[in-house]
Amino acid sequence: MRIVRVYYKGKPQWGVIKNESVYLLNSTPFERIKYSGQIIARKKAKLLAPAIPSKIIMAGLNYKEHAKELGLKIPKEPVLFLKPPTSVVGPDQNIIYPRGIKRLDYEAELAFIIKKTARNIPEKKAKEYILGYTCCNDITARDLQKKDGQWTRAKSFDTFCPLGPHIETEIQPGNLAIRSYLNGMLRQNSLTSDFIFPVYYLLAFVSRIMTLLPGDVISTGTPKGVGKMKPGDTIEIEISGIGCLKNQVVFMK
Amino acid sequence: MRIVRVYYKGKPQWGVIKNESVYLLNSTPFERIKYSGQIIARKKAKLLAPAIPSKIIMAGLNYKEHAKELGLKIPKEPVLFLKPPTSVVGPDQNIIYPRGIKRLDYEAELAFIIKKTARNIPEKKAKEYILGYTCCNDITARDLQKKDGQWTRAKSFDTFCPLGPHIETEIQPGNLAIRSYLNGMLRQNSLTSDFIFPVYYLLAFVSRIMTLLPGDVISTGTPKGVGKMKPGDTIEIEISGIGCLKNQVVFMK
Repeated sequence: MRIVRVYYKGKPQWGVIKNESVYLLNSTPFERIKYSGQIIARKKAKLLAPAIPSKIIMAGLNYKEHAKELGLKIPKEPVLFLKPPTSVVGPDQNIIYPRGIKRLDYEAELAFIIKKTARNIPEKKAKEYILGYTCCNDITARDLQKKDGQWTRAKSFDTFCPLGPHIETEIQPGNLAIRSYLNGMLRQNSLTSDFIFPVYYLLAFVSRIMTLLPGDVISTGTPKGVGKMKPGDTIEIEISGIGCLKNQVVFMK
Repeated sequence: MRIVRVYYKGKPQWGVIKNESVYLLNSTPFERIKYSGQIIARKKAKLLAPAIPSKIIMAGLNYKEHAKELGLKIPKEPVLFLKPPTSVVGPDQNIIYPRGIKRLDYEAELAFIIKKTARNIPEKKAKEYILGYTCCNDITARDLQKKDGQWTRAKSFDTFCPLGPHIETEIQPGNLAIRSYLNGMLRQNSLTSDFIFPVYYLLAFVSRIMTLLPGDVISTGTPKGVGKMKPGDTIEIEISGIGCLKNQVVFMK
């Protein structure tokens, strides 16, 4: 099932995409899918980010190949950081290039959305707490990341967390192809089977630190091949079984 | 004015404390103070954390004396990190000592609460965007902070962000006495006049990165004298003109 948030008739609404239609929902999709009966053409619905997270938890280095490329040891535990909810944008929304930034990078990531409140969840039960999967672009001001040591500022600007295009509920997260394209040119090309810390492990790990709430997002790190963008560039994150998240970089006005 | 959130008649409600009474409000205190007409005895109202932030932005090293003590250079820009909203607890609520943590520290901080949406605010207008001030305890698992390099995990556990006891709207933030007491013994004792980055500077700085929303919290870093706590300890953060935030440390069940 492909769950979307759309802007329709002046307000954000949840829906499910089937073929070329969006079946609108009466409520959030977390407890159960309850159709309102209203169906609209997909083309008439502007897609929004498919999550309104109370928090966004990002895992750092999580692909073996990427760790090798950087000459780093395989970490024993995930390194976490947070992005603020104000950094979220949806498909086709602009990524704003902040003034004074010297290098702005894309980072293709598989993200998952929490279905129900999760605290101290064992890995083998993690699946029950996941609503589904989407694409995430962990936009990073690389120069600030190096300067600050702490990664937060570099990754927290408004528009630095594109999410979408929808939540796919049916896929298994363990062997997905993940790619990024800059202006149509392939830049990252990996498989989630290369994860150091798989999805269920990450959920269990994070849930031992903080209570996860419905709609919260956990993103799983990026594979090798990150690189810089400039205003005017188009960046696409594509994950097999999900789809493609496309955004354009623009100068700050 | 002293703004509080209280738990009364089965739900959280905003109010204003005058003498020994809480004057309940009809709505949030961000746009204006609108009394409901209902007045309750202060003793009958259980105080909650006086903010429900969509994000909590913390400034790192921000006291000159503390920087000297650590042998560090005075930083040229604030270093930021985020705490998740799930880390917030109110006055008299327990701080839960997580399993496996070797050292858990208190950090007394002055925090301020955002009054209205703020984006790219100049320092000289910052004051208009602040609802008021409260005490914050930036609880930190020091061993995890050192191990991870990134500070997020160490500072993000549930209950690691005590806030309160209320929002004081009248004070000037530039020369407040800030103290912490562990089991009644003075541990930190400083003045906010020692700030490297004063409150209005911080608001302006953060607002150039991310849009601040009503209720968001920015905390201003801790002075020298941080130290460890163990289950059973009582920790108090006291700021002149505001009051005292008291919490107890308990073992995780």
